[in-house]
Amino acid sequence: MRRFPPEGRQRAVIENVKPEIDAGRFAAKRTVGDTVAVEADMFADGHDLLSAVLKFRRKKDPKWTEVPMAPLGNDRWRGEFAVEKIGGYLYTIEAWVDRFETWRQGLAKKIAAGHEVSLDLQAGASLVDDAAQRAVRDDRAKLQRHAAALRAGAEKKVAAKIEGDDELLRLMQKYPDRRFATRYDKELAVVVDREKARFSTWYELFPRSFGKPGAHGSFADLERVLPYVASMGFDVLYLPPIHPIGRRHRKGKNNALSAAPSDPGSPWAIGSEEGGHKSVHPELGTVEDFKRLVAKAKDNGLEISIDIAFQCAPDHPYVKEHPEWFRKRPDGTVQFAENPPKKYEDIVPLDFETEAWRELWAELRDVVFFWIDQGVRLFRMDNPHTKPFRFWDWLVAEVKARHPDVIFLSEAFTRPKIMYRLAKAGLTQSYTYFTWRRTKAEIVEYFEELTETEVREFFRPSLWPNTPDILMDYLQEGGRPAFVARYILAATLGSNCGIYGPAFELGENRPREPGSEEYLNAEKYEIKRWDLEKADSLKDLIAAVNRIRKENPALQSDWSLKFHPIDNDRLICYSKRAGDGSNGERANTILTVVNLNPRNTESGWVNLSLAALGLDRDGPYEVHDLLSDARYVWRGAKNYVELNPNKLPAHIFRIEERTQPH
Amino acid sequence: MRRFPPEGRQRAVIENVKPEIDAGRFAAKRTVGDTVAVEADMFADGHDLLSAVLKFRRKKDPKWTEVPMAPLGNDRWRGEFAVEKIGGYLYTIEAWVDRFETWRQGLAKKIAAGHEVSLDLQAGASLVDDAAQRAVRDDRAKLQRHAAALRAGAEKKVAAKIEGDDELLRLMQKYPDRRFATRYDKELAVVVDREKARFSTWYELFPRSFGKPGAHGSFADLERVLPYVASMGFDVLYLPPIHPIGRRHRKGKNNALSAAPSDPGSPWAIGSEEGGHKSVHPELGTVEDFKRLVAKAKDNGLEISIDIAFQCAPDHPYVKEHPEWFRKRPDGTVQFAENPPKKYEDIVPLDFETEAWRELWAELRDVVFFWIDQGVRLFRMDNPHTKPFRFWDWLVAEVKARHPDVIFLSEAFTRPKIMYRLAKAGLTQSYTYFTWRRTKAEIVEYFEELTETEVREFFRPSLWPNTPDILMDYLQEGGRPAFVARYILAATLGSNCGIYGPAFELGENRPREPGSEEYLNAEKYEIKRWDLEKADSLKDLIAAVNRIRKENPALQSDWSLKFHPIDNDRLICYSKRAGDGSNGERANTILTVVNLNPRNTESGWVNLSLAALGLDRDGPYEVHDLLSDARYVWRGAKNYVELNPNKLPAHIFRIEERTQPH
Repeated sequence: MRRFPPEGRQRAVIENVKPEIDAGRFAAKRTVGDTVAVEADMFADGHDLLSAVLKFRRKKDPKWTEVPMAPLGNDRWRGEFAVEKIGGYLYTIEAWVDRFETWRQGLAKKIAAGHEVSLDLQAGASLVDDAAQRAVRDDRAKLQRHAAALRAGAEKKVAAKIEGDDELLRLMQKYPDRRFATRYDKELAVVVDREKARFSTWYELFPRSFGKPGAHGSFADLERVLPYVASMGFDVLYLPPIHPIGRRHRKGKNNALSAAPSDPGSPWAIGSEEGGHKSVHPELGTVEDFKRLVAKAKDNGLEISIDIAFQCAPDHPYVKEHPEWFRKRPDGTVQFAENPPKKYEDIVPLDFETEAWRELWAELRDVVFFWIDQGVRLFRMDNPHTKPFRFWDWLVAEVKARHPDVIFLSEAFTRPKIMYRLAKAGLTQSYTYFTWRRTKAEIVEYFEELTETEVREFFRPSLWPNTPDILMDYLQEGGRPAFVARYILAATLGSNCGIYGPAFELGENRPREPGSEEYLNAEKYEIKRWDLEKADSLKDLIAAVNRIRKENPALQSDWSLKFHPIDNDRLICYSKRAGDGSNGERANTILTVVNLNPRNTESGWVNLSLAALGLDRDGPYEVHDLLSDARYVWRGAKNYVELNPNKLPAHIFRIEERTQPH
Repeated sequence: MRRFPPEGRQRAVIENVKPEIDAGRFAAKRTVGDTVAVEADMFADGHDLLSAVLKFRRKKDPKWTEVPMAPLGNDRWRGEFAVEKIGGYLYTIEAWVDRFETWRQGLAKKIAAGHEVSLDLQAGASLVDDAAQRAVRDDRAKLQRHAAALRAGAEKKVAAKIEGDDELLRLMQKYPDRRFATRYDKELAVVVDREKARFSTWYELFPRSFGKPGAHGSFADLERVLPYVASMGFDVLYLPPIHPIGRRHRKGKNNALSAAPSDPGSPWAIGSEEGGHKSVHPELGTVEDFKRLVAKAKDNGLEISIDIAFQCAPDHPYVKEHPEWFRKRPDGTVQFAENPPKKYEDIVPLDFETEAWRELWAELRDVVFFWIDQGVRLFRMDNPHTKPFRFWDWLVAEVKARHPDVIFLSEAFTRPKIMYRLAKAGLTQSYTYFTWRRTKAEIVEYFEELTETEVREFFRPSLWPNTPDILMDYLQEGGRPAFVARYILAATLGSNCGIYGPAFELGENRPREPGSEEYLNAEKYEIKRWDLEKADSLKDLIAAVNRIRKENPALQSDWSLKFHPIDNDRLICYSKRAGDGSNGERANTILTVVNLNPRNTESGWVNLSLAALGLDRDGPYEVHDLLSDARYVWRGAKNYVELNPNKLPAHIFRIEERTQPH
């Protein structure tokens, strides 16, 4: 004979809760000040009505706060709460059959149908009496008076009472009968990051290329470059690995198998006799120099991000000190990295299947803590998809438990499910396929997946038109208009974006060989000299775009992204919007149109979804091109655009909801 | 400091497993002989390859069986198992990094690229040696010989060996290194029913209407009707409640508030001084008579289903014996059923919020067990949506644990999420909105939801063109062609279907008043006389359709349902298919076209999805109308159909994949 459930009278059902990632195994992501809107299917048997509350709390605070949920139709309910602090939050739902509300609405129908309701009034009075028992002091007395009034009430007076008596309703809602409430069987998590997790503009450079003529650049040299980076409106300065570079099997220029004595090697070949992941490459300076750089950067409005690449050069100290962390070949040598038939002899991977995995994990965590201690809170995690997912689950939790302000950028350019799993592990931002998406159809499909599906709950896109490893064909072929278009796309499609410079703003577009997406004479393997004052530099255009990003909240988050039809496949049109105009808050709406053809002028008719833009169907409105400062009066959905890539391949319009003469 | 996970080297990830209903809280449904195809996203970090097995077992057998899973692309994997016995099954997944396979494929690439691989051969030999340690007897020796051969092998021989050595591959797959295998964190359930859960044809009648002239019909009278029902090809005979009918507040004809002394009352007003849910209405006979009816029905190929309605007439014995199971009004009387402003004075509902809910649940379970003891295995559960879902979760589990052959039909005509939740509780079949879906768009949308989404895993539709409570407007207006069309739709769209007869086959279509979907002089409230031999009875048409159902496996399940475009909204076209022609199994494909306009001939061009029909693009094929016996040679996707509703409003074609002359 089967056992009974502990309580058979919990009649409310709660299911299909959103957000809920992988049955609650992973947390949703938000930033400070965001709202968490929670929806669920809820219903009970029979005709009785439900009430429900959304319960939430900070993880470290055991006390729940409750907010009412409201029905949306078709048994879907919704409630929301704001997350005001960084760190973890939990939420769950409680729902119950609301006998008073069921009684109240039934009584109204009976009165409307002319039924005799004296017994119903007494039944209602009993419910109010019960609530009085749950109430305190004044409220109790008030409820008892209401119960008496119901018992004595003539039908008409009661009808008015149950429709309009705010006090009775309010008190009954304050003291509900929740004995048989159903509690959702999971507590779901949200990780709340600081604002930069949602809105950040990254600039990557190799410090060694900014030295005095003929010399290896240092952190001290880099201090002089900070104003240049800041002037373009970036707020993150990201440095490739800053550690000593291995000498054994060091790569030469253009990834040559052997290096000349003067070749500096790839910064990702980490570790030499001079130290490993907790050391600074001597030619860059010292840990103290780095700390000064961090402080100076801050003075320039820049946060320093460093690259954490959990891999070693063959002469990394770990190889001697912890041979058990590396796999051996049958001849006793350490196994280098390979992806057959490709070999990476300058890198030896850590063996995450080592018996000593706990010690290895702890050391890698300590690397992160070490740099946190030097003032870093932004980490670009290199190739996370080549380390076990469980390791990331653990590492991110470890770090964020102590430092919830840390942001990790996941550098995984790999298969989609793997990229998403790394984001679920808690890595804060993620590189995306934007780097290769060039046609309108490709861009629309991908960004609708990123911003309209459940993916947006855990995967924060970071859009990069280039990286030191990736010079996409479109940039190789399209010249300056292609660079402008790609930056505008990155900066308006994604609230998080970045470039690898100065290669980008200087329009560097020579591939190692035709068909390659590697740079010719890639900076990964040599020291470059960049002419930052080159006449055709994109720095002013980038500065203008970044200023538009800073001034327009619409561009500081991604969920509102909406594509609008346009009758030319070489033109793409989309909007973002912040604020809905309620609470006196001013809505901010940005409509971007980009010509994807870097060679020719393209024109077409946009067919705007006016509702998505907060516009009336018929009225005129002004679109203000924040790039050119031109203003146009548009009307309705269909409007004409024409873009000459050699002048400016894009409009970034702010929609002014009231047309103003000028 | 955070604890480490128990094992950090489980590198495989398993997610997005299907079927998995509500995070594994509910079981999927299958019938004996079905296949359970399980899919999951699986991947590991890095470039290493995975192997994975699907594990399954009968719930009562602790031993797992394993079948390999295979990749489908984009990190999706699939495996399947057959369910051969009724009762519960469990399944889960295990996946691991396959070092041998990773080595083997890497080696092949290196050899192809002309690399020197002597160290790789030794590394492979070590993997084979390790496997030998896991192997038994002969296998161990064989593996050791293979390891030696690898160590000694010249490259070319090895290349041939690793490509083509079936024995080495087979042995390495037999003894994999699963130390760090990831086990999916849930065991998911399947409930396997007997075949009738998937394929059944129901006939509902009121036994009391089949008595001798002027008399109340009895079970003995009903025995004489069995051949009639069987002759139409039905296999379930379902009887409304067979218990004593209450006298207090009994309803009269046409649901009148008071009954004449001769009025028999509604069978759903259960219970009187003559007994309750475990008794038989005296005018129908005795429990012994019922058992004889069950046996005689079986002789006619019919299974008896009874109605279980967990509600009471005011004079049900429970009301006196268990007053605590009912809610009281303030005047001390028992609360009757109501849905304000509607009142149902002849019914008192059970109070599932009673303190004595455990005793109530146990008694209701015993009602089911009582009728199981009398030979019933099919129950039509009345209004399950007015009893708590937790009760159904428990009741179904209770009953099926002892009697896995029991089938419950859920009579819930209510909101969609509630209907689905009842199906998740385990109720075997469910009434559907088919009863009201009349246009092509409505039918296509609804049946795509039922057969193409996750709903199909737990919700088995039962299609009823009419019930004693529901005479849809289309039947009221459309005359005989409407009845024919609705039966053919029910019988070909749904492998489970039923009618309330003889009202249906005799074309009874008079509503109580215009705009009502109640029958005039509804049989619920009075004894009817039916002329079963009426000239325009649909019985022969129904018999023909039911014969087609029995002879064509395509119509005995629902998942293959596919709608085909046709350029006339009054015509609907769809196919079902069983068998895929593999394993020598002969595919069976039925293509149905129905004219939804009961008044006029309609014609149009179908545009068939040939792939869904197993047809080549260009070849001719024969369509054989199993209703009219006409045969047509069609070619390609576009073909012409014309249907005169006054002759036959439908084609039920069998597609003969090879055209045969005749």
